[in-house]
Amino acid sequence: MADKKVEAITSMEEDFAQWYTDVVVKADLTGYTSVKGFMVLKPAGYAIWELIQKQLDERFKATGVENVYLPMLIPEGLLQKEKDHVEGFAPEVAWVTHGGLNELQEKLCVRPTSETLFCDFYQKDITSYRDLPKVYNQWCSVVRWEKETRPFLRSREFLWQEGHTAHATAEEAQERTIQMLNVYADFCEQVLAIPVVKGQKTEKEKFAGAVATYTIEALMHDGKALQSGTSHNFGDGFAQAFGVQYTDKDNQLKHVHQTSWGVTTRLIGAIIMVHGDDNGLKLPPRVAPTQVMIVPIQQKKEGVLEKAEELRAKLSEVARVKVDATDKSPGFKFAECEMRGIPLRVEIGPRDIENNQCVVVRRDTGEKLTVSLDELEAKVAELLDTIQKDMLEAARAHRDSHTYTAKNWDEFVDIVENKPGFIKAMWCGCTECEEAIKAETGATTRCMPFEQEEITDVCVHCGKPAKKMVYFGRAY
Amino acid sequence: MADKKVEAITSMEEDFAQWYTDVVVKADLTGYTSVKGFMVLKPAGYAIWELIQKQLDERFKATGVENVYLPMLIPEGLLQKEKDHVEGFAPEVAWVTHGGLNELQEKLCVRPTSETLFCDFYQKDITSYRDLPKVYNQWCSVVRWEKETRPFLRSREFLWQEGHTAHATAEEAQERTIQMLNVYADFCEQVLAIPVVKGQKTEKEKFAGAVATYTIEALMHDGKALQSGTSHNFGDGFAQAFGVQYTDKDNQLKHVHQTSWGVTTRLIGAIIMVHGDDNGLKLPPRVAPTQVMIVPIQQKKEGVLEKAEELRAKLSEVARVKVDATDKSPGFKFAECEMRGIPLRVEIGPRDIENNQCVVVRRDTGEKLTVSLDELEAKVAELLDTIQKDMLEAARAHRDSHTYTAKNWDEFVDIVENKPGFIKAMWCGCTECEEAIKAETGATTRCMPFEQEEITDVCVHCGKPAKKMVYFGRAY
Repeated sequence: MADKKVEAITSMEEDFAQWYTDVVVKADLTGYTSVKGFMVLKPAGYAIWELIQKQLDERFKATGVENVYLPMLIPEGLLQKEKDHVEGFAPEVAWVTHGGLNELQEKLCVRPTSETLFCDFYQKDITSYRDLPKVYNQWCSVVRWEKETRPFLRSREFLWQEGHTAHATAEEAQERTIQMLNVYADFCEQVLAIPVVKGQKTEKEKFAGAVATYTIEALMHDGKALQSGTSHNFGDGFAQAFGVQYTDKDNQLKHVHQTSWGVTTRLIGAIIMVHGDDNGLKLPPRVAPTQVMIVPIQQKKEGVLEKAEELRAKLSEVARVKVDATDKSPGFKFAECEMRGIPLRVEIGPRDIENNQCVVVRRDTGEKLTVSLDELEAKVAELLDTIQKDMLEAARAHRDSHTYTAKNWDEFVDIVENKPGFIKAMWCGCTECEEAIKAETGATTRCMPFEQEEITDVCVHCGKPAKKMVYFGRAY
Repeated sequence: MADKKVEAITSMEEDFAQWYTDVVVKADLTGYTSVKGFMVLKPAGYAIWELIQKQLDERFKATGVENVYLPMLIPEGLLQKEKDHVEGFAPEVAWVTHGGLNELQEKLCVRPTSETLFCDFYQKDITSYRDLPKVYNQWCSVVRWEKETRPFLRSREFLWQEGHTAHATAEEAQERTIQMLNVYADFCEQVLAIPVVKGQKTEKEKFAGAVATYTIEALMHDGKALQSGTSHNFGDGFAQAFGVQYTDKDNQLKHVHQTSWGVTTRLIGAIIMVHGDDNGLKLPPRVAPTQVMIVPIQQKKEGVLEKAEELRAKLSEVARVKVDATDKSPGFKFAECEMRGIPLRVEIGPRDIENNQCVVVRRDTGEKLTVSLDELEAKVAELLDTIQKDMLEAARAHRDSHTYTAKNWDEFVDIVENKPGFIKAMWCGCTECEEAIKAETGATTRCMPFEQEEITDVCVHCGKPAKKMVYFGRAY
């Protein structure tokens, strides 16, 4: 049994998709279930989500967000109130038709997202400008009946947060939309060590019912893009459909302006595919449930386990730390630490104890350091910071070296075929061109980045005058 | 609009049920939805749940619990594997029959509880004694198609945690069952300031599929009992039904022994009904999202708001504190603080500033203290501790003074009719007697307490030899 875990996994260069599945399974993040398309988040996987939740929630609250909880079921009539929204979601929802022993008069869908419920709630709860803004968020699970599923990336149920806000003015809604996109981008960089491109989705790619959708796009190790978080400005479209109105200071009845924004357990997929390597998962310290694993060497010798425990107690002041005192071999334990992505491994044996030192090994670089036990706490704290920064820089370097510029169609096709990564190119703004590019190459518009450049003045595909520089890419 | 909130609520002596509803609404804890039997947890209500979650989760983890997440949908075939369990739950579940645009081959129920999913998971995940114990928990929502619903006490969806463990031996499972019951009891007393009676449920009242169910029972202000948490020992019944087996050290294939245990948002109902009064909610400091509200007096006078903000900054070192700087009157703000149950109110006006002092008012007793600003932090920290202790003692005194002993049937009937509270009485152990007592008086067996007393040696109802002393009561 035990040996299974250290069997080599598929190399990422050989078969990236299989490598991904191997890491998910061997790092013990998820399990399969008897419910098709649904997964179990095992302790090692769920603990990463808990760290994401905690740190993101703190950032939300610092901007005035309050958490709430709304029903998991949506009556069909409510879902249908906003035309674009129901068209976008109806084909992929699960329907509850029976409650208890009776057939329901109106069927209920398991929430695929909660815009309609929040609108219904706001319609009841908002009457005056004094009630605004509402800046609410919920942590929950949602269901979308996907045909093809992959752990974290696409599953029929996933965990997420969905923020839903209501504002007095269009300006304030737009400001909140961008503010939350920036919270996401900052979180990805600072906590997940994943650099992202911020920008706006095209008309074709925007959310069902939104006026504008903004996105953060990350580049995976294999050169494919992953949409990692979105923030939507709804204008007053939902408010019109649901009658969400308030009496303003001038005593006029007005519609509110709304936003929504969300990230999901998909971020765990991003962590795996941005940082991982052929030895397994590589966790940035800030989302590593265990940041330091102490591995005793010759642990049956007198004093070794005691010393390991002493180090654990000391290090627990500066890090999340564990001792692996199981009866597996040190080599096995090393491999397991690597597979599970633990940022630092501390090795301590009889000779180390004699010399008042230990060996510290970085997961990100493999570097081995001999550290005096008197300096261990300071050194571990420092190394965790360094690893966090270095992992972001490594990811940024990979992203930048896999971001290409296509001045014309020949270049575009060559890049798509031969150089997996982001492609920056000019675009005329027409959906027809966008669709043709996708049909011909498989590359989709990832976003119109906030940081625009003028590569040429014509569309890379049709040659008509260009309106925007766009990031293209093949995507998950 | 604003004035609505300080309208007097129904007196609890006059109509306890209406008082409860008034508090839930006016303290802004929940909102009604368009989904019958489902509620919105508004920020003030959800924040209490967040504090419950955080503190309970820490206590769980200190005993080795790991969090996971399992699917929200259960295939019909899986639900049916354990006979007693399916009989207990099938009549009250919601069924998903369509996914996307297609009818499902096998219908799925929205989890009413997850024993079957955990068994299915453990059956795949456990093979050896090395994999044991599994001590997993999940925080999620569940759906039970209740006919009558009341906020927090009974709703078609509620938030909870469900722990599910698997052990090598029956002894270890029993130990964990009691350990978690003790965690709950300790949490209720120390955090929620609610004293509980610990004991075992009778055969009739135990969980569908359990060998033994243990419970903590609390007494509400109106003398009714509330089952506040349960812990179940399943023996190897589920393991037999689902084939959850492991190879032991002696190379024998054995079934695991399982437990489950849970508490729900119902605890918020308990907080309301144990501590509240005719001025509204009364929150124990440890679950008060805002522990101190600073109310500026004559806030338009120069320096008042600045001073209030200065105090907020200082006090935020020792408490969760806010300033109410809205344009409502101080009297309105006082009433609102009381309605929302905020443990301490600090009043600061021009004359207070001159005298380097402020007025501190306790929500639990109404006591007013004049406190020097130099001593405010220390005094607030001390008062919050005192309030926490005093609220527990007040609740304990109420519980004890409403716990009666019935030596014979006449006394029992007299107590049920005239003295709402717990009734301690002897019982023969027969379900027939238990059912007759319920039919004749409406009182049910709450538990067979761990702390047994011998009141008489015969059953209070049938006069046959008594087996157990039981807590009876009318219950929510």
